[in-house]
Amino acid sequence: MLERFLVPEKDRVYIKFENMSLATISIFEKMGLSSEDAKLSTEVLMTSDLRGCESHGVSNMLRRYVEDYGTNDMNPNPNISITRETDVTANIDGDKGLGLHVLPRAMEKAIEKADKHGTGTVVVHNSRHIGMLAYHAMLPISKDMIGLCMTAGNPMSMVPTFGSEKRFATNPWAYAVPAGDMPDFVFDVATTQVAGNKLSLASRVNSPMEPGWISKPDGTPIMEENFLPENAESKLGSDEYMMLPMGGTREQGSHKGYGFAAVAEILCDILSGMSAGFLMPSHPRGIMSHFVQAMRIDAFSDVSKFKKNMDDMLRGLVETPPAPGNQDVIYPGLPESIEVEKRMREGIPYHFEVIDWFETIKNELGLDFDLKS
Amino acid sequence: MLERFLVPEKDRVYIKFENMSLATISIFEKMGLSSEDAKLSTEVLMTSDLRGCESHGVSNMLRRYVEDYGTNDMNPNPNISITRETDVTANIDGDKGLGLHVLPRAMEKAIEKADKHGTGTVVVHNSRHIGMLAYHAMLPISKDMIGLCMTAGNPMSMVPTFGSEKRFATNPWAYAVPAGDMPDFVFDVATTQVAGNKLSLASRVNSPMEPGWISKPDGTPIMEENFLPENAESKLGSDEYMMLPMGGTREQGSHKGYGFAAVAEILCDILSGMSAGFLMPSHPRGIMSHFVQAMRIDAFSDVSKFKKNMDDMLRGLVETPPAPGNQDVIYPGLPESIEVEKRMREGIPYHFEVIDWFETIKNELGLDFDLKS
Repeated sequence: MLERFLVPEKDRVYIKFENMSLATISIFEKMGLSSEDAKLSTEVLMTSDLRGCESHGVSNMLRRYVEDYGTNDMNPNPNISITRETDVTANIDGDKGLGLHVLPRAMEKAIEKADKHGTGTVVVHNSRHIGMLAYHAMLPISKDMIGLCMTAGNPMSMVPTFGSEKRFATNPWAYAVPAGDMPDFVFDVATTQVAGNKLSLASRVNSPMEPGWISKPDGTPIMEENFLPENAESKLGSDEYMMLPMGGTREQGSHKGYGFAAVAEILCDILSGMSAGFLMPSHPRGIMSHFVQAMRIDAFSDVSKFKKNMDDMLRGLVETPPAPGNQDVIYPGLPESIEVEKRMREGIPYHFEVIDWFETIKNELGLDFDLKS
Repeated sequence: MLERFLVPEKDRVYIKFENMSLATISIFEKMGLSSEDAKLSTEVLMTSDLRGCESHGVSNMLRRYVEDYGTNDMNPNPNISITRETDVTANIDGDKGLGLHVLPRAMEKAIEKADKHGTGTVVVHNSRHIGMLAYHAMLPISKDMIGLCMTAGNPMSMVPTFGSEKRFATNPWAYAVPAGDMPDFVFDVATTQVAGNKLSLASRVNSPMEPGWISKPDGTPIMEENFLPENAESKLGSDEYMMLPMGGTREQGSHKGYGFAAVAEILCDILSGMSAGFLMPSHPRGIMSHFVQAMRIDAFSDVSKFKKNMDDMLRGLVETPPAPGNQDVIYPGLPESIEVEKRMREGIPYHFEVIDWFETIKNELGLDFDLKS
C-alpha cells in the first residue's frame, strides 16, 4: 500500500491481534450471527488488518455492517442455497447475508469441485460486502490450487472512459497462487485507480489524491494533486467526485481498467442472474455478487515442478536490480507476508478514531471486550 | 485503437478481404502448412485486420513467421499432443507450431469439455505466436459460452514496477462474452501500456509515444512525449527502451499492470510446466505458452436472461452521457464490429510498405496471388 494511506505515527494505537479479534467476534455475535459465522467474518477482517490492508479491515467497514444489521439491510442468518449446479459450477443465492461469511462457503464448494474434477467455478448473487478479496482467493492455496475472486454490484463509483456518469463499482479482482519456499503470490486490486475504501482512509489521514485518480462531476479527469472534501464517502455517493478506471486517462490506458471492470460486472452480476449494478434498484449499502474459481495445479502439470518454477520466478523478480531512486522490486503478496509477521509480534496500528468507535460501540451494545489488555 | 496508430490516409492501399486472404493462405501453404492450418492461420490474421487491429494482422507478423519457418524456428507440421488431462482440464504440447493454428485446437478442446461439464480450461506449452487474442477468446461465443485467452513467454519487453530489467513479455488477456442484439463484448489488451506490435506500427507511421508508455534503459519511466528511434523493434530487443506495465508509474497503478502480467505468466508458462519466460533459454523469436477457458453460460444461469442483461448493460454504457470534449462512450468490441462491416465493404487499408513486401515475397516464393484484382 502507498505510504500516504498509512496511519500517521502520532495517531496510532497498537492493539493485539487476539484482542481485536475477540472484540470483533463479540460485535458480530451481538448482530445475531452464529458463533461460526461471527468467527469467519472476523477472520476475513483481521486477515486484512494483519496484511497491512487496513482499508478493508475493521477500521472502515465494521461500523457500516453494524448499521446495516440495524436497519435490516443485511440478513444475519442467511439461508444460503444453490440455485443451479453442474459437476464443476454452481450459482449460490446469498440471501442478503454478509459476503464475509457467505463467500467462503462458495469457495469451499469450488474447491470441492476442483478436487474431484480439476476446476470449480461458483457465482454468488444477492449477497453483500466481502471485505478483502485476497482472503477468499487464498482459500484454495493450501490444497495446491490457484484461487480467483471477483466482486461487483452497487453502489456505483467508477466513471467509464469518456463518460460523465458512474457505471460500475470498483469491481476488484484477486488471484492467489501457491509458491514453494517463497511467500505465496497474492494479487488483489480494484479496477479503479484506487480502492474505494482507501478514499475514507485518505480522508482520515488527510492525504492528497494523485492526478488521474478521480474525475470532476462532469467526468473530466482531475490532473492536479487534490484533496477530497470532508466526508468524502458521502460526497462520492452524491456524484461530487467519481473514481477513474485503472489507467486514469484514455492515453494512459483507462480503457483497460474500464474493460477489466466490465468483465467483473459480467462474471459476477450478469452470470449470476442479476442485472448490471447501475440498472439495479438503488441500494445505498450495496447489493453484491461474486465470482470465485479454484484450479487444481496437478490437473495441468506437476505440483513440485510448478512450485519450484514459482519460487524461481518470484526470486528472480525480487532480485531484479531496481531503477534509480527505488528500493527493491517486490511482488504481490511479499510485503503483505512480512507485515503479517510484524503485526502478530508488535500489534496492529489503528487510528485512534477507530479505537474510539470500538469503545463507543462497546457501551452502546453492552459488550465487555478489552482491546488494551 | 488510438488514432495515432492508424495508417495515414496518403500511405493507404485498400485491398479486398478475399484477395489478402488468398495471398496469405498461399504464403502459409508455401511454408509447408497443411491446407487446413494455412486457412486457419490466415483467418486469425484477417479477423484482426478486419477488426481494425492491424497491429496483429498481416502487416507486422507475417514476414516474421516466414523468416521463422525459413530458419526452422517453427514447425509447420506440429504433432499437437495432450500431456495431461482431466474431465475439464488439459495441457497440450504445441510442438513448436505456430500458435495461430495450435491454439484454436486447444480452445476446441476447452469448448468440448465445457459442453459436457460446464467449463473447460486448457493450457498449451512449447508453442509460438498466437496473433490477436480476441480471435481465440471469441471461439466459444457461438456456443453461448464465455471465452478467456492469455499468452506469455519470451522475448521480454516489460520492466516490472521499480525495476531496471525486463521480466515479462506483454502478457495480454482477452475475454469475449456473447450479447443478444448488441455487438458482443470482446476485450483484448496487453498488460503493458501499449501492445508490442503497436510500437512497430507507431514507428511506421511516425507517431510519438505518450508519457509513461516506455522507460529509459535504467528503468526510469519517460514522462515526456517521445519518438522511438528507427528500427524500434530491434532497439527494444537490445534494451535501449523497455515497455512500462499498464498504469505506467507506481502512483498511476503500474503495480496493477505488473500484477496482471504476472498472473498471465503463471497461468501460461508455469501452469503448463514451463519456467518463467525470463528464465527460459534465450529465443529471439519467442517460445510461448497459452491459457484458454470456456464457460457455458447455462451452467450458471439462464442464457436468454443473461443476453438480455448483457444488452441492457452494453446499451446503458453506450448511452452514458459523454464527458466534455469526448464523443460517445464505447465498450470493447463495439468499434471493432463496426469496422468489420466497413472493411468488408470498402477493403482493408494497408500501408504501402506492407503491399510492397507482399509483392516482393510473391516473386521470391514464386507465388501467383493478385492483391489488386
